[in-house]
Amino acid sequence: MQSFEIDKTDLQRIKVALESDDAELQRVLKEYHPSEIALLFEKLPQEAKEKIINILPIEVASEVISEMDEEHRPGELLINLHPDKRSEIVEELDYDDATDIISQLDEDEQQEILEDLDQEDADSIRALLKYDEDTAGGIMNSEIIKVNLNFDKKEALDEIIRQSEEMEEFYTVYVVDDSNTLIGILSLKDVVKARINAKVKDIVNTDFVFVKAELDQEEVAKLISQYNLTTIPVVDDHMKLLGRITVDDIIDVMEQENTEDILKISGVSEDEELSGNWQDAVKSRLPWLIINLGTAYLAASIIRHFDATVAQLPILAAYMTIIAGMGGNSATQALAVTVRRISLSDLTDSQAYNTVFKEFLVGLINGAANGLIVFFIALFYDANIMLGLVLFLAMTGNLIVAGLTGASIPLILKRVGIDPAVASSIIITTFTDCAGFLLPLWFATHLLLHTHVK
Amino acid sequence: MQSFEIDKTDLQRIKVALESDDAELQRVLKEYHPSEIALLFEKLPQEAKEKIINILPIEVASEVISEMDEEHRPGELLINLHPDKRSEIVEELDYDDATDIISQLDEDEQQEILEDLDQEDADSIRALLKYDEDTAGGIMNSEIIKVNLNFDKKEALDEIIRQSEEMEEFYTVYVVDDSNTLIGILSLKDVVKARINAKVKDIVNTDFVFVKAELDQEEVAKLISQYNLTTIPVVDDHMKLLGRITVDDIIDVMEQENTEDILKISGVSEDEELSGNWQDAVKSRLPWLIINLGTAYLAASIIRHFDATVAQLPILAAYMTIIAGMGGNSATQALAVTVRRISLSDLTDSQAYNTVFKEFLVGLINGAANGLIVFFIALFYDANIMLGLVLFLAMTGNLIVAGLTGASIPLILKRVGIDPAVASSIIITTFTDCAGFLLPLWFATHLLLHTHVK
Repeated sequence: MQSFEIDKTDLQRIKVALESDDAELQRVLKEYHPSEIALLFEKLPQEAKEKIINILPIEVASEVISEMDEEHRPGELLINLHPDKRSEIVEELDYDDATDIISQLDEDEQQEILEDLDQEDADSIRALLKYDEDTAGGIMNSEIIKVNLNFDKKEALDEIIRQSEEMEEFYTVYVVDDSNTLIGILSLKDVVKARINAKVKDIVNTDFVFVKAELDQEEVAKLISQYNLTTIPVVDDHMKLLGRITVDDIIDVMEQENTEDILKISGVSEDEELSGNWQDAVKSRLPWLIINLGTAYLAASIIRHFDATVAQLPILAAYMTIIAGMGGNSATQALAVTVRRISLSDLTDSQAYNTVFKEFLVGLINGAANGLIVFFIALFYDANIMLGLVLFLAMTGNLIVAGLTGASIPLILKRVGIDPAVASSIIITTFTDCAGFLLPLWFATHLLLHTHVK
Repeated sequence: MQSFEIDKTDLQRIKVALESDDAELQRVLKEYHPSEIALLFEKLPQEAKEKIINILPIEVASEVISEMDEEHRPGELLINLHPDKRSEIVEELDYDDATDIISQLDEDEQQEILEDLDQEDADSIRALLKYDEDTAGGIMNSEIIKVNLNFDKKEALDEIIRQSEEMEEFYTVYVVDDSNTLIGILSLKDVVKARINAKVKDIVNTDFVFVKAELDQEEVAKLISQYNLTTIPVVDDHMKLLGRITVDDIIDVMEQENTEDILKISGVSEDEELSGNWQDAVKSRLPWLIINLGTAYLAASIIRHFDATVAQLPILAAYMTIIAGMGGNSATQALAVTVRRISLSDLTDSQAYNTVFKEFLVGLINGAANGLIVFFIALFYDANIMLGLVLFLAMTGNLIVAGLTGASIPLILKRVGIDPAVASSIIITTFTDCAGFLLPLWFATHLLLHTHVK
């Protein structure tokens, strides 16, 4: 099976079906998975989406809405539906999905939806709306399977089977005491394998990983990935069980964080939508380019300072662009490795020190290797051994600057609490541009022109 | 809870415990989660690791080994254990994890381990070893819960509970016919909610997503993420059920693919280990830098061609580095957005066309905006309006080149079956360097020096 792509045929079929009768539209829609209908929605006008949602069975309609990307505004679709239909859909949604969608709307619209719901559903969603959407509380689901510490095997098994009637998927069983304090976890396997007269408290596993509701979702993703968890319980400050986060909720968090990393490191603002329009792209990128223009003038001012040197030896103008460019690329390499390493796990002091030292060594070796090539080209092509030496020293020096800044700047930013990916190539290459112009011009001025004036 | 970091205290405690008696070592080890012991192993010598594995309970020892990173060679640790211990550990491992670890060893060592196992376990692992480790077959687990199409509700429920006794975690129930052909899926909820005399065939859900064993793991990850699945069944060419892949197996695939993307786009070979040593880093990055040196000479040769222009107006040397640098950064922005978009979903022809057109527009606007700034600086600082015009045109032109190449090259590579992230900044900036030197020098030669020779 290949991943689904919307093509013109699908869109055409849906559009034709929308024009014909309801039975035909239902027949055509049946051939698509809810997540495929959500993709098709990206290309359909508002009335068409509403018509489709109204005609779909409630379970399918709610799945379609929960699969829609936030940027395609499922909340707006929901608020425009007939209130009865809307309540049915919201009640069918998982609480965490319902909360995400409702949180996109303004206060009045949120109230309008919540007032029409069952008291219990409305209360659960109101409780979830309190949490920042980037925290554990914001992504957790409050539908869980839990058993009391004092149940025996049969009570526990009956309770698990009873509770699973409400839940699409089954993971860990949570064990709580009479005041809903989380005591431990159990798998179905633990319960099934237990002696017939065992109590939950005899078999409960009290060695487990949990998170507080306020924890940042990125940290939750790191924990789930590091401990290879399928699900992680969320508790309040008094260890009361609030909900659970499952690994599939974390997939979206990971993709989002990875997109942000790759964009920020390339000098694109983290909230540019990948499929956004050109206006948004300009808004997200122009500020970085203007900063870069400023730093480029800084680097260029170095060239102006050495005007006399360039005039005496114009070939330097070509060579220094090579040295600056090589430094920029080398710094981007060191930066990418360091930023990615920091995103996957936190580094200890000694690991941070080793990283900077490693990048210094890599800069030295790669600089010397490329420096040698440039040296021999200057020797044979320009027939100027001192020019070769100047270029060798400048190349080695600039690639060392590249390694040191590419590794240390993101590490320093991380320590002072700034996102290390902000140390984008645009910022780092300022250093390699300045050093890339300064080193060849300075060495040329002091080594070459004083000893070998043309 | 924060994610675990190994610090010197932990390492010191383990080292002291290793020197004292077994009871003390066991006591200290009990305080660490298996995945934490796996992290500590990265810092311990081979004998220490063997001693710890031998002293841990089998379940913990096998979990530690399965949590070790491939680069820290769990297979080597396994092969050096006493054969009895080794077999116990392998039999405790999930088949997919056992296969991953055994596949790192050479043929003879693999045989040595497999010969000591139960026939059934050995056969299952041999079957999995056939699949390429980057495919669905290579990451699937063959331990699944399955029921026959003809079971009634009670038989199905009993069978599910019986089979769950063998499995740590529970997901979807697979429904097969008498010849093990996959017919559909069920959740525990479906079974529990069914009428008392319902048969499995009455309630089975036959509309499900599956993959063939040969499918690339990256495609599996896209499907799981697109359809929000917790688990996906793996079948052979005749729809026989082979195993399942769960979302937590995919987390590692996603992190690996994301790391590869961010490295390749920055000109680092995809198999450089983030925490590798400097020798590996040099091996992975030097080839790209040497390619870059070649392309830099190409760009620099443009400068040599316009020697006379630079000699007449040396200030151009400084300005053209600014224009080339701005183009490089702008291209990196367009490249990052496009590469990331391609990795998250496949683009249709019209989406691809729109992306290139959008990046052209963004290049035009950002180019004109920065061009205006440069124009005014040339006007007020250099008091040369024609120089300002030359720089405005060159900046706008180069940022258009940046947008067009940054968007179209990864799209073209994807179409011809090459990984689009290989269109790294290093490759794309060749275009913007060449255009960044050529455009100001050409415009200056034809507009400025012919009309305004100093």
